Amino acid sequence: MSFTISVGPNLRKSPYFDATVADGVKAFSVYNHMYLPAQFGNPQREYQQLIDGVVMWDVGAQRQVEIVGGDAGQLLQYLCARNIANTQVGQGRYVPICNHRGQLINDPVMLKLAEDRYWLSIADSDIELWASAIAAERGLDVAVGEADASPLAIQGPQAARLVASLFGDWIHELRYFWFRATQLQDIPLVLARSGWSKQGGFELYLQDASRGEELWQLVKQAGSAYDIVPGAPNDIERVESGLLSYGADARLQVHPANPFELGLDRLIDLDDDHEFVGRQALLEIRNAGIERRLCGFYVDGSAVASNQHSLPVCSTGEQVGYVSEMVYSPRLERNIAIGLLATDLAGDTVLEVQVGAEMRSLTPTALPFIPHR
Amino acid sequence: MSFTISVGPNLRKSPYFDATVADGVKAFSVYNHMYLPAQFGNPQREYQQLIDGVVMWDVGAQRQVEIVGGDAGQLLQYLCARNIANTQVGQGRYVPICNHRGQLINDPVMLKLAEDRYWLSIADSDIELWASAIAAERGLDVAVGEADASPLAIQGPQAARLVASLFGDWIHELRYFWFRATQLQDIPLVLARSGWSKQGGFELYLQDASRGEELWQLVKQAGSAYDIVPGAPNDIERVESGLLSYGADARLQVHPANPFELGLDRLIDLDDDHEFVGRQALLEIRNAGIERRLCGFYVDGSAVASNQHSLPVCSTGEQVGYVSEMVYSPRLERNIAIGLLATDLAGDTVLEVQVGAEMRSLTPTALPFIPHR
Repeated sequence: MSFTISVGPNLRKSPYFDATVADGVKAFSVYNHMYLPAQFGNPQREYQQLIDGVVMWDVGAQRQVEIVGGDAGQLLQYLCARNIANTQVGQGRYVPICNHRGQLINDPVMLKLAEDRYWLSIADSDIELWASAIAAERGLDVAVGEADASPLAIQGPQAARLVASLFGDWIHELRYFWFRATQLQDIPLVLARSGWSKQGGFELYLQDASRGEELWQLVKQAGSAYDIVPGAPNDIERVESGLLSYGADARLQVHPANPFELGLDRLIDLDDDHEFVGRQALLEIRNAGIERRLCGFYVDGSAVASNQHSLPVCSTGEQVGYVSEMVYSPRLERNIAIGLLATDLAGDTVLEVQVGAEMRSLTPTALPFIPHR
Repeated sequence: MSFTISVGPNLRKSPYFDATVADGVKAFSVYNHMYLPAQFGNPQREYQQLIDGVVMWDVGAQRQVEIVGGDAGQLLQYLCARNIANTQVGQGRYVPICNHRGQLINDPVMLKLAEDRYWLSIADSDIELWASAIAAERGLDVAVGEADASPLAIQGPQAARLVASLFGDWIHELRYFWFRATQLQDIPLVLARSGWSKQGGFELYLQDASRGEELWQLVKQAGSAYDIVPGAPNDIERVESGLLSYGADARLQVHPANPFELGLDRLIDLDDDHEFVGRQALLEIRNAGIERRLCGFYVDGSAVASNQHSLPVCSTGEQVGYVSEMVYSPRLERNIAIGLLATDLAGDTVLEVQVGAEMRSLTPTALPFIPHR
């Protein structure tokens, strides 16, 4: 069952769109109202190069909400449950954000570009609308908009060597989530040690959308020495690594979840005294305790196809959770999944999930399945 | 150039998804993070049946932001530039909404279900996040969420006869945008005289997502007497009719535009005394006057393919506007387009747009191209 995607003016092309077409992109998804490459026709090779070598991904759809002005720091702190007081210029931080009811609505990386200038590098929901409403209603001295900044991710164990060949050896000193404004030839960009995999790597935040083709070719040419291939954020690797996917594991309108349920406890600084959106709700949730939590699952039987939508997890016919994503792991040589499961189940509870016409048994396990590199 | 769409758990299926697959959907787009059918393999027939007969569309992706509570009316009035004071229960109204800077961020139909309960039937942006932030920051007594309500549109000149055969002759008395809660067999739904075409028709807001397949089949069976075909919101008809498409004609992050530029002046009630988001900015915009405005264009030459992205409109090499969507109109037997154009051009200005490798000349004209039915 395969469908065409309609390419029209209601959705947006990434600055790398034409380059990915020239390089044989076969499938797209849509993320932040923008086409996001999904695969280039050889998923096995794209996975293997991410694990063993290096891949390049058009993740221009990971948009930057830019917050600039005298009250930018104050607004960011109010938007984030995490205490960001000690963040330095040049530092990025993973900052899950919640609505006033304490439900996760996005999990961006925040980049502090200057004392009065920040980016939120967002997952798939319109945080610009939400943040700008809060800023205006509070009368803060900030401008909330979207930056001209489109990431190209370079991921995999060979990423650092490749990126050093382009930018110099200083990139080896960049700590995780830190970044630096620089250029490649004269293309302006922000280079960050980051990316949506746990295989190591970097993101080049292109700051001139008219130059996507050039940047793509420069990375591709330098990458040929490392057998670089174009690819896309990889669902198998993300499940193996236990990386959260806002949109799949939780989405406000589909699977609303709070950050404690999603295992993000360490990023919710309720014991500090900063005021932030959802604080009161999160205090109540923490006090009441949670009834389900994100976990991994081993799925019995022969190799499964990836699921198209979430699947109920059942115990003796009753739903006790859901699998958000299920994949066959080539490294583990078995089926694995990620999802939410009730916390009050006895240790010997038999769990099942329906895969096509058959029931498969599930064994819950801690995340990640494979330790991070 | 055709690409597959990746169907995975990060995007959402409509309650009618499986039914559309069974009926041969060939292409999808994505709207409000949900798969939206784009065509079923015979675009000419889908267009012709919309114009001459009747079509059924899965527009479940047109989500309902539900606002309930004692302050619901107060919040809605604050969100909308249009004065909605006289709206009655059972009445819908088209209510373009703007951010605090006066830029359009969505153009929903508002349905007043009760004095304390409203839906915003939204275009493609996360108005739930925006509205809930404003409600919470203002401390209003409302709950903002998403209703279990997924529209199935029935459009075309035969729509009323078909819908009457299912629901009774009372539907003929329903005025445009008005609605009534009812059921089909025992499937709960809201029936509205509305839809994103100007060929007449209705939308059935299914209120139990588990029953999409049933509703689809009931409409299809009753529609067989009228040669109903499955289809999708139709870009050709919308350009002919001059219907605004938020996402294509304007989108905050791509083509920010204010409602005066988009020809929505009659819906911006600045001379009433109600306070609303963007009021001050819109007053300033109105006083300053606008420099461009939405219009139609005739495009010279042989039949064009639909454009994948907006196209610059140029006069002697300088950009003076953009075409957001360009189609070949079978009824007019010529190419037509919609877009924004500078207001200060001399009447004899020569306009051009690049289509593939060639330049085509453009003639601006008033909208709509074809009067509404």
